[in-house]
Amino acid sequence: MPSKTLVDITPTIVWQNGQVKLIDQTKLPLEEEYIITDDYRVVCDAIYRLAIRGAPAIGVAGAYACVLAANEIQATELNDFIKQYLLKADEIGSTRPTAVNLMWAVKQMKEKATSFSGNVADLKIALLDLANEIRDDDLERCHNLGLHGASLIPDNSNVMTICNTGGLATSGIGTALGVIQYAHAQGKDLKVHVCETRPLLQGSRLNTWELKRTKTPFTLMTDSMAARTMQKIDIAGIFVGADRIASNGDTANKIGTYSLAVLAKHHDVPFYVAAPLSTVDYEIESGADIPVEERSPEEVTRIKGVQFTIEDIDVTTPAFDVTPAELIHGIITEKGVARYPYKESLEEQRNAD
Amino acid sequence: MPSKTLVDITPTIVWQNGQVKLIDQTKLPLEEEYIITDDYRVVCDAIYRLAIRGAPAIGVAGAYACVLAANEIQATELNDFIKQYLLKADEIGSTRPTAVNLMWAVKQMKEKATSFSGNVADLKIALLDLANEIRDDDLERCHNLGLHGASLIPDNSNVMTICNTGGLATSGIGTALGVIQYAHAQGKDLKVHVCETRPLLQGSRLNTWELKRTKTPFTLMTDSMAARTMQKIDIAGIFVGADRIASNGDTANKIGTYSLAVLAKHHDVPFYVAAPLSTVDYEIESGADIPVEERSPEEVTRIKGVQFTIEDIDVTTPAFDVTPAELIHGIITEKGVARYPYKESLEEQRNAD
Repeated sequence: MPSKTLVDITPTIVWQNGQVKLIDQTKLPLEEEYIITDDYRVVCDAIYRLAIRGAPAIGVAGAYACVLAANEIQATELNDFIKQYLLKADEIGSTRPTAVNLMWAVKQMKEKATSFSGNVADLKIALLDLANEIRDDDLERCHNLGLHGASLIPDNSNVMTICNTGGLATSGIGTALGVIQYAHAQGKDLKVHVCETRPLLQGSRLNTWELKRTKTPFTLMTDSMAARTMQKIDIAGIFVGADRIASNGDTANKIGTYSLAVLAKHHDVPFYVAAPLSTVDYEIESGADIPVEERSPEEVTRIKGVQFTIEDIDVTTPAFDVTPAELIHGIITEKGVARYPYKESLEEQRNAD
Repeated sequence: MPSKTLVDITPTIVWQNGQVKLIDQTKLPLEEEYIITDDYRVVCDAIYRLAIRGAPAIGVAGAYACVLAANEIQATELNDFIKQYLLKADEIGSTRPTAVNLMWAVKQMKEKATSFSGNVADLKIALLDLANEIRDDDLERCHNLGLHGASLIPDNSNVMTICNTGGLATSGIGTALGVIQYAHAQGKDLKVHVCETRPLLQGSRLNTWELKRTKTPFTLMTDSMAARTMQKIDIAGIFVGADRIASNGDTANKIGTYSLAVLAKHHDVPFYVAAPLSTVDYEIESGADIPVEERSPEEVTRIKGVQFTIEDIDVTTPAFDVTPAELIHGIITEKGVARYPYKESLEEQRNAD
């Protein structure tokens, strides 16, 4: 590959002349700064401090970090090499212990080495090939998901989204924001209503940057303005991403997503989830089994370190909420648009080709 | 008076030894700083820069500003005095041209002078009496409204609110937050779920300070967490204030209020508006006739002056939204709890005694 694409891929992470180049998302949108390194420790640090984020993007970063780690090993004897390599790979995999995609990518990168027969130089080439393949898979999934989703957006329409689910969260064109960008790239006239996404403001900080980059018309609002927007404007669809989808379709996503789903129902607005099939946890029956992580109170009491409320107060800080499957009009994946009841339709997609 | 009260009155604005003393709300909650002055221009400046806010509180501030203005006039001849006084009163009334209560209070303070017969010294006393009366009326209305509303809150319950509608917004115990504080003062075990209220964070900045002051248990959250809270916790009622109520009950209030009303309906949570009858605009048929003010984009793109998104983007910034009467379970005023249909019940309250 790399995969065909309708919009310029965001330079979230690329491999370039034996180095990893990634955009520092903590600096966006006010500064566009890149980290270029041949040191896997620098990539680990970037993952740790959220300079790179989004499950698919972190997986790709982990794979390239393994390549960098391999390249700095001096051993020429295969067993010696693998011994040193596995230690470093485990170090990379533990950077963000809850990131499923990171584990998954590092596991593949480890298996490639342990199952390899040949010389060290060839293994190093094989590791780079595999990392590129992991990135290309991500690109390809985003592309197909984008095409399926874009077909749901009519010409001359308004859409709404929350959090950042664009190219910055993947190595491709993204998920929910990718769908919207694809519809725009197809020549459809549309406007994106962007929820700022408190507490961490991913909508305000990252979607604005991505949408401006592709010249997609948008307007920014606080999360509390979404209901009034639905009351005043005909919204053709709300598109959101997913952190985890239960086998019945219940979807955990950024806090505020469930709120949008309820408001969408009241205003008769279609509500769509866009995520690769790898987000579906077929082991989990329903949303009741998805644990909701509580974050630091400082995310609510401060913005960019600036305090605006008193200390020592009780603060609720769920990182995400769970939207019941009944409120979801469709789950857009790389295989198509699954429809309610999701138990069946998601299972079908899993077994397709 | 002053009126009996179940909770300590917030020292929003008081008259003290010929001076006005008011708490500087721009410094809250991190600093508790007071402005003490005998210069009406300082009070005007405080109104202008939102050091004092909330329609009823601004009315009281305007009345006391008129007293300070009168006291600095040297003229001893009544006509000379009134001439100078009216000029200053108009200056005070124009500090915030859209604040209906300010106009209303200054108008009364002007009429007192123009209809007065007697000497200047007596008129100065009469003006102070009238300002105190305006304050006492506000206190009394809050008290009665608080009692009516508190009866709607059961023991051992959770309630929710948005924006600041407490003592800081009035010279009494407030409206929606006053209702909650009264229920707590009556010995009811309750917890307040406080929406931070983006963009200006009145919930985060001011409710936290007021609730801590009266030792009322609360938890702070972003506006986007309200839906999840209603999904997880049995909320006995949502209590909000009002900027303007149409004669059919449609209610304009802080942006995010309509969102809560829709979420309340979905979760079967009673949704109440608390406001003095003076907030009802009987001239207006429905919410469609209430203009919604757009605010500066900087309120959305910055917090406390700290920028976190890019410049030159389209931003939606409605200051409030309009909740249709059908979503409102009751409108709590100083006369009682009006019920749907409001056209009749609000008219009845208007004509009561």
